[in-house]
Amino acid sequence: MESVYDRNEKSAAEFNKSLTERGIFCVNIMGSPGAGKTSVLVKIIEKLGLPAYVIEGDIESDIDSRKLKSLGISAVQINTGGACHLDAPVVSDAFSELEPDGVNLNRGFLFIENIGNLVCPAEFVIGEHIKLLISSAAEGSDKPYKYPLAFEKADIILLNKCDLLDYIDFDREFFMSGVKKLNPSALVFTVSGKTGQGIDEAAAWLKNRSNPVINIIK
Amino acid sequence: MESVYDRNEKSAAEFNKSLTERGIFCVNIMGSPGAGKTSVLVKIIEKLGLPAYVIEGDIESDIDSRKLKSLGISAVQINTGGACHLDAPVVSDAFSELEPDGVNLNRGFLFIENIGNLVCPAEFVIGEHIKLLISSAAEGSDKPYKYPLAFEKADIILLNKCDLLDYIDFDREFFMSGVKKLNPSALVFTVSGKTGQGIDEAAAWLKNRSNPVINIIK
Repeated sequence: MESVYDRNEKSAAEFNKSLTERGIFCVNIMGSPGAGKTSVLVKIIEKLGLPAYVIEGDIESDIDSRKLKSLGISAVQINTGGACHLDAPVVSDAFSELEPDGVNLNRGFLFIENIGNLVCPAEFVIGEHIKLLISSAAEGSDKPYKYPLAFEKADIILLNKCDLLDYIDFDREFFMSGVKKLNPSALVFTVSGKTGQGIDEAAAWLKNRSNPVINIIK
Repeated sequence: MESVYDRNEKSAAEFNKSLTERGIFCVNIMGSPGAGKTSVLVKIIEKLGLPAYVIEGDIESDIDSRKLKSLGISAVQINTGGACHLDAPVVSDAFSELEPDGVNLNRGFLFIENIGNLVCPAEFVIGEHIKLLISSAAEGSDKPYKYPLAFEKADIILLNKCDLLDYIDFDREFFMSGVKKLNPSALVFTVSGKTGQGIDEAAAWLKNRSNPVINIIK
């Protein structure tokens, strides 16, 4: 009997393959509730200079997808009702809603904003090429120690809300040392979804990393 | 066949009954990662003037229980390894570790700090008399809309990190209106685990609410 994990992994691999063939680079965005996932994403998309599509995951509400659409970004909302993470079948179904009749999207980014949850989403692949973790400085510097899997699996970590660093007790050395122990190769960028600080660098890294996929289509 | 939920509910009811008989008032503390659960708890315990015991739930690390013990508070750490919420059997086992040989705790508070997760813990009772939700203002004012169950089930909500309100965009009216729609009777206190603002009022409410249980034992 196939496990839930195995079935999800198979579905994720198929979805990832179909995205790669179309030159679509897929980013799984993870983070706690209120880490600033949507705000950072908006700033990054502004800087990419390439088509970007977004699947928004939330338990309830369409606040985030409405925000993105109001900025002219193609977005579709998933409401899980209660489920604490997205899975590959749900995501690939949602992706087809981004495609108008007869049009196949290609050459660009697909960002999937996972449920705000630093625990469960890290356990499930959803077709992504990379995982991007957003950790808000306001959550404190001990997060890598308490929620190791998300930090271990991330390809890139954005330490967000750096505009608040003057007003909070954040021990950067402790944070970085926790990250490095779990994930020596992860890149950490310090950013602010509010002021835009650090977004250029993060967007440049993403563009560079996406090149081999996006340039499959000439 | 009994479901996982049914079994947990039965175990929670038994644990709650045994606590009530000893005059121990049990509070299930929920909130996102980095909402400030432990900092607020420390400030509240200082103000209670009654014995308080703590069960700390985390995926990994003993940072919080060490912090509490260093302040002279009786605490035991649960590490779930990966599980995204506490359940009643795990909690009642941990409680017995708080009791030295031959001593039965009575007349006081048992605080259970659940896993930092605004989704899954709200679905499971763990023997509590009340649920206390800590929502950090830094997470933004849309949390009730996106994570309704935790707000719906809370008996008391502490809007924490109010010391940051001058530096963030927080729409209090939007937040309160989301809370009231889900949970018209919930009390909301604005607090800061850093400065102590609002803690007196929250502690007074907890003492008052705990009276019928704690005074079972004379």
